Amino acid sequence: MEHLSVTDAQQCILEFVKTLGAEPVRLEQSLGRVLADDVYANRDLPPYDVSAMDGYAVRSADLALVPATLSVIEDIKAGDMPAKTVHAGQCARIMTGAPLPAGADAVIRVEDTRASSETEVQINVAVKPGNDIRLQGEAMRNGDAVLAAGTEITPGISGILATVKSAQVRVHRRPRVAILSTGNELEDIDDPVDPDKIPNSNSYALMAQVQALGIEPDLLGIARDDPAELAEYLQRGLKFDVLLVSGGTSVGVHDYVRPILESLGVQMKFWRVAMKPGHPVAFGVLPGNAGGNSKDTFIFGLPGNPVSSMVCFEQFVSPALRRMMGHARIHRRTISARLTHNLKHQPGRTEFVRVTLKSEEGGYAATSTGAQGSGMLLSMARADGLLVVPSDSAGLAGGSMMAVQLLDGTVFQEDAIFKE
Amino acid sequence: MEHLSVTDAQQCILEFVKTLGAEPVRLEQSLGRVLADDVYANRDLPPYDVSAMDGYAVRSADLALVPATLSVIEDIKAGDMPAKTVHAGQCARIMTGAPLPAGADAVIRVEDTRASSETEVQINVAVKPGNDIRLQGEAMRNGDAVLAAGTEITPGISGILATVKSAQVRVHRRPRVAILSTGNELEDIDDPVDPDKIPNSNSYALMAQVQALGIEPDLLGIARDDPAELAEYLQRGLKFDVLLVSGGTSVGVHDYVRPILESLGVQMKFWRVAMKPGHPVAFGVLPGNAGGNSKDTFIFGLPGNPVSSMVCFEQFVSPALRRMMGHARIHRRTISARLTHNLKHQPGRTEFVRVTLKSEEGGYAATSTGAQGSGMLLSMARADGLLVVPSDSAGLAGGSMMAVQLLDGTVFQEDAIFKE
Repeated sequence: MEHLSVTDAQQCILEFVKTLGAEPVRLEQSLGRVLADDVYANRDLPPYDVSAMDGYAVRSADLALVPATLSVIEDIKAGDMPAKTVHAGQCARIMTGAPLPAGADAVIRVEDTRASSETEVQINVAVKPGNDIRLQGEAMRNGDAVLAAGTEITPGISGILATVKSAQVRVHRRPRVAILSTGNELEDIDDPVDPDKIPNSNSYALMAQVQALGIEPDLLGIARDDPAELAEYLQRGLKFDVLLVSGGTSVGVHDYVRPILESLGVQMKFWRVAMKPGHPVAFGVLPGNAGGNSKDTFIFGLPGNPVSSMVCFEQFVSPALRRMMGHARIHRRTISARLTHNLKHQPGRTEFVRVTLKSEEGGYAATSTGAQGSGMLLSMARADGLLVVPSDSAGLAGGSMMAVQLLDGTVFQEDAIFKE
Repeated sequence: MEHLSVTDAQQCILEFVKTLGAEPVRLEQSLGRVLADDVYANRDLPPYDVSAMDGYAVRSADLALVPATLSVIEDIKAGDMPAKTVHAGQCARIMTGAPLPAGADAVIRVEDTRASSETEVQINVAVKPGNDIRLQGEAMRNGDAVLAAGTEITPGISGILATVKSAQVRVHRRPRVAILSTGNELEDIDDPVDPDKIPNSNSYALMAQVQALGIEPDLLGIARDDPAELAEYLQRGLKFDVLLVSGGTSVGVHDYVRPILESLGVQMKFWRVAMKPGHPVAFGVLPGNAGGNSKDTFIFGLPGNPVSSMVCFEQFVSPALRRMMGHARIHRRTISARLTHNLKHQPGRTEFVRVTLKSEEGGYAATSTGAQGSGMLLSMARADGLLVVPSDSAGLAGGSMMAVQLLDGTVFQEDAIFKE
């Protein structure tokens, strides 16, 4: 089998992976989920014409000559209904969000007035009809579809769902994800320290990558390099929607995982991608009902190496999980950044170089975290992003503008960095 | 009181808000939290020199002439300890991560070999000593500080914590946050629909903004415009670390909140910021022990208007909450984007314009979501970012490169957008 390009491997995965069905959740538990249905407005908003300011509701025609003194006939708070009609020479004191009284056609904000007494006010500016009024239905009209199925629930969307009184919403289900590590050399986190063993970091890095997508995965533990034990663990994992297997899919003679998966009915779709780090990475499908699961199960074989495992997760697993949850945005955000130094590269594989980002005039500067050995988990932890070196590149010159995928932890920055 | 600039208001807040104390949490619950202590390596990693590839451990001097045929004396898997020494003319079959046997000084990957039998292999390439070997302690050296206090726990950091067997970690405490809405006009989410009322969206948008920071806030509900009721609600809120009060802090005559807060011991630090949307926004401090709380309580008065409320949260509340949790990165990430159209602006206030972002050659294009009326929560929900218009600007020309703060939902994008 040929090595696939990263893009071809992603497309192969997305041909099989489908968005999951819907379930109801409380609004309070819905952040980050994706709407399964359109959402409709159940009233006009504002429900009537309202004041956009704290001030005075006036007849604009009364202000041909300013300053003008008007008599205050009423005091309208948000939540009150006006009792009186504003006639010539009159006005009403009004609060932001309060209904405009009949007769008035504009609002003057309090800063442009001077109250001479409880019953009189001096208006200092002339305005056009409609000034500082928010019209009935301006924000939302009864019956309109205000949110489309497929919308991710961000804080602003939570506000809209509350506005249309959706105390409960239907969202796409989250996949159930199992994580299995393999290898005789691994020592689990609660095991005593054995200096000859390697700590199992992959299960926990993968766990956190899955958690960062809003999914709580199941850790199945460590399967040893024994066909019967591996088969037993893999069978448990195949009952989930997605099974991540760390290690054990390489081309070496001790590779048990792939043949066992195939013997359990898994159809392997690819197991080689032309990327660095990332070799070997595999993808397979267990068709529905074959594993005690009415839906297909998707299997990702990830490299045992911690950095490779994390990079492969971002390129292949994360888009698949987000697709299953119904997201349209399934790939890591990329920005364009200036490479601060030359970078060696041998043509043949797409390379993901761990970089730190520093903001500079007009954009970002990207600098390699240093040694890119795939055992260097510390350099992955320190990285802000992955700079993508095209597979046909014979090396990059310092100053090149390159695409950098932003990693977790980069949603925020130390300084506000804007010119006020 | 003068209107503060956004930056001055942020600095005022950060003078008072301090990072909270530490608490232990399980590694599985620690994603997004901030380490309160340095973390040290408890062993060398790799624990010995290991193979970086599946292949053969050789003596590089044996490969002066290639192809060379070597006899295979042993089969070393990850987790095994080598039993034999590799002498001249010999090699050992070795798996990625397995310990290098004595006598060998390099690894040849399997792709550069041809196995002629179980006991003989032909090596096709010559290599230098050290080839494809990961040296003991290369990734981590016993006793080294591998993570500094103040580090945010991202998935890569979770992997490192698992590597040093930190099943439990000490992280900074999360602030307890209460959210209170005020106003007679408000109808809560579980109330029946009254067409004359305004649905309470702010509590839920603020809830989601707080949740997006990893904090589960308490919703105190809606206080009506009655001094006794307000005082009761505010007293409850002042028992938290942070109290967000939505509405009720404007300059109008029905403004009860500020004097009641002051009567309860709160020292108001500012209540006017020169920004749009965002007026009015207030910040106060209740010194420790004054509210039944041994720590200071911080009070943010946020505009009743939904968009203004969300924008003020991002500029003022979010940095404060992240500072309390120990984050160094407390501000929204900004990118530089090309404004696709002219934009009107009257000097005097910093304006945050809701924009959508579209990627284009070399960067991003920003386009206003349209009407920027502050009642337009839908336009906030659709926005990818907030474009910052400097307060002294007399308007922006299409084509200008401007800073855009990225909002929630923009961590991912639809297409991978990189050249492979």
